[in-house]
Amino acid sequence: MNARELIERKKRGGALDPAEIGFLVDGYVAGRIPDYQMAAWLMAVWFRSLTLSETRALLDAMVKSGRVIDLGEIASPKIDKHSTGGVGDKVSLPLVGVAAACGLCVPMISGRGLGHTGGTLDKLESIPGYDVRFDEERYRRTLRDVGATIVGQSTDLVPADRELYALRDVTATVDCVPLIVASILSKKFASGAEGVVMDVKVGSGAFMRDLAAARQLAELLVEMGAAFGRRVSALFTRMDEPLGHAVGNAVEVVESMDLLRGGGPQDLRELVVELAAGMLHLGGLAATWEAGRREAEQVLASGAALERFLRMVRAHGGRLDPDRPDCGLEVAPRAAVVESPRDAVVAAVDGYEVGMAVVDLRGGRQRKEDTVDPAVGVRWLARVGQRYAKGEPVAEVLARPGSSTQAAAARLARSIVWTDAPVIVPERFLGRIPDPATRVNPGGRT
Amino acid sequence: MNARELIERKKRGGALDPAEIGFLVDGYVAGRIPDYQMAAWLMAVWFRSLTLSETRALLDAMVKSGRVIDLGEIASPKIDKHSTGGVGDKVSLPLVGVAAACGLCVPMISGRGLGHTGGTLDKLESIPGYDVRFDEERYRRTLRDVGATIVGQSTDLVPADRELYALRDVTATVDCVPLIVASILSKKFASGAEGVVMDVKVGSGAFMRDLAAARQLAELLVEMGAAFGRRVSALFTRMDEPLGHAVGNAVEVVESMDLLRGGGPQDLRELVVELAAGMLHLGGLAATWEAGRREAEQVLASGAALERFLRMVRAHGGRLDPDRPDCGLEVAPRAAVVESPRDAVVAAVDGYEVGMAVVDLRGGRQRKEDTVDPAVGVRWLARVGQRYAKGEPVAEVLARPGSSTQAAAARLARSIVWTDAPVIVPERFLGRIPDPATRVNPGGRT
Repeated sequence: MNARELIERKKRGGALDPAEIGFLVDGYVAGRIPDYQMAAWLMAVWFRSLTLSETRALLDAMVKSGRVIDLGEIASPKIDKHSTGGVGDKVSLPLVGVAAACGLCVPMISGRGLGHTGGTLDKLESIPGYDVRFDEERYRRTLRDVGATIVGQSTDLVPADRELYALRDVTATVDCVPLIVASILSKKFASGAEGVVMDVKVGSGAFMRDLAAARQLAELLVEMGAAFGRRVSALFTRMDEPLGHAVGNAVEVVESMDLLRGGGPQDLRELVVELAAGMLHLGGLAATWEAGRREAEQVLASGAALERFLRMVRAHGGRLDPDRPDCGLEVAPRAAVVESPRDAVVAAVDGYEVGMAVVDLRGGRQRKEDTVDPAVGVRWLARVGQRYAKGEPVAEVLARPGSSTQAAAARLARSIVWTDAPVIVPERFLGRIPDPATRVNPGGRT
Repeated sequence: MNARELIERKKRGGALDPAEIGFLVDGYVAGRIPDYQMAAWLMAVWFRSLTLSETRALLDAMVKSGRVIDLGEIASPKIDKHSTGGVGDKVSLPLVGVAAACGLCVPMISGRGLGHTGGTLDKLESIPGYDVRFDEERYRRTLRDVGATIVGQSTDLVPADRELYALRDVTATVDCVPLIVASILSKKFASGAEGVVMDVKVGSGAFMRDLAAARQLAELLVEMGAAFGRRVSALFTRMDEPLGHAVGNAVEVVESMDLLRGGGPQDLRELVVELAAGMLHLGGLAATWEAGRREAEQVLASGAALERFLRMVRAHGGRLDPDRPDCGLEVAPRAAVVESPRDAVVAAVDGYEVGMAVVDLRGGRQRKEDTVDPAVGVRWLARVGQRYAKGEPVAEVLARPGSSTQAAAARLARSIVWTDAPVIVPERFLGRIPDPATRVNPGGRT
């Protein structure tokens, strides 16, 4: 076998067999196949795509490139959630509390923010003491004792994904559906998850701006899950205006705590409940999505979800004070206010601009090596379809005293499209794809 | 400027401006742009091609990546010839003698054989003492005193081509017309040539098997020549059966000498005369191709071409004895004979197989690092359209005593398609593209 021949075949539109895909992936991780040959192959894949069989072989080779965690000692269903990334998307934080309180085990290995989207690890690191580093002993103990963990990637889980992703990042081959699917699922399958609910975001604040592209990704995710004997279902959710009011790091933790303390914004609550219902259904703990929703609402109301989340934070060394409104976190003061320019209705919000405003404030990363300021952020007040009087605040900039807020405030102002006509508020939930095992269940209702 | 953005733009089908192409080429040669980014860009170019402006910028950046030789001190027209490679194609050897004897200056920088095709440097190295290494002082002196030189590539001429070619070779991006054009012309333009006649081979013994592909390449070569203020014309010649009878290294030198000594095979003579005529016309020393043909015939008949070739060989330290039939070269003895299997006519010859038979005998290279045996080869007797009696020899294998000749003999036997019907012998000359300066000359006849 010879890498050049495999590149040539893919370039001409041919397919590689599993042994050939394994030869490439194993050889690349072992350093036998150089970066430049893998880069040429990835670009050929961008143009020619991969067959289902090739995608499956790629995923398999990637999972096997490192340690694979078996959580067989835990009896409860191991169900994870993955979001394709959004603005103000703090869902993972309250969700793990809800899911664990309902009896699931949630082995969540998360990432950092890049571009306009926030990252769960960055948010957790705004909690004093929270250690996001992966430690298998603590990972297993926390899953056993609390039922949920959120940590960062370990160096020995799926090394192929780490190396391939770094290469794709610098060779303009990130935006390729089968490569994205293999990247997402390889990490989930190596982490010990039996099933994953995908929150596929669509809109101006998401990486995918139209439903057709999102559907293509989600269908392949679900199909590859089934091919591996795991359960994968997908939910399409709108991501134009930010989710909730808080966009940043500490502010998003506080908003998550507000939800768990019985308050919080309605849109965040609905999404957390919907995803928890999907996870419970996928894990077999709820017969229908509707039953799952009721259970989720119950553990939110009883405080059981809050208690689980706090235990999870403590298990990672984090200190959160649920009795203080700010939970004891450092949140930057209000440094600027964006006002409605006239008496008008919000027609649309460009979520990308809101996310980039937070990056301007150093609450996100422009490059991987940037450090994130956990205290800064945006308090977003504008809601699509609502009318605001001239001068009424629509966003607040939370920034370090003395720092420049002009660029961020300008972005926030131009992210809103105003209108005088009434606006039809778009649906938040755009559909879902159940996992195939559920789909073939005769008479099954979801 | 950022390499990833340039890869992304090419991937999406956009074009790069000259500064951006220069940024990539200069950065690659200087080591600022890594192999893997260049590999991804080259693969994107394979799929999207290059615009004329991009090809021109690439060629320009490649020429400027190293030393550019100015032969302004030599008054005679500096005209080179380039062949896309064939089997038994020893044309360069007698041709430089003919062209120099007619008053041209031929600064020829040649390559080695790869795959089924022979290489001019390998042939010259079968001459005892011939030093193919590039030495600028000797290069200029030989051109001044003899009017022709054939040497190898210098490390400081077009380093971008050497590095890009090595990368293309291992990333399956060799077969891309604009990249091939930039590679060929950059070396010619850096060598000091004012004009080049391209011998574009078409057929089973060539790299391009159909005329349409060859025409695409030739048109871009001619167009890019004009864009650089140089003269480039192209001749399409058939390359199915070997050119002449000798295929190998020393045997091809001997056959070249036979031509220069007034004999030699008719097909080789016709091609040498045709290419010399094209060079003389391109250099302005012949008003028409017909006049150029007459001049070439004259220097062949007078011995002037032989005298020039021998001086050129001597200038590089080579020792050839024109008074001995074998010119004093070591030629392996006849070790096997391939006979006609029945009384029949040769319908077609697969030149690729004939070339590979010589590789089997170690007269060519399977890999770059292989060494070549100058003495071995094939004496090819079969001619398309001719009838052979059963048992009549159609090819002879020239090999070291005791070495295996079976594989080579089998290849030679299966390279011939036999028929009982009469065969129409295909034309050797398939057309040409004059250089644009000639084309616009009103009333100009060629």
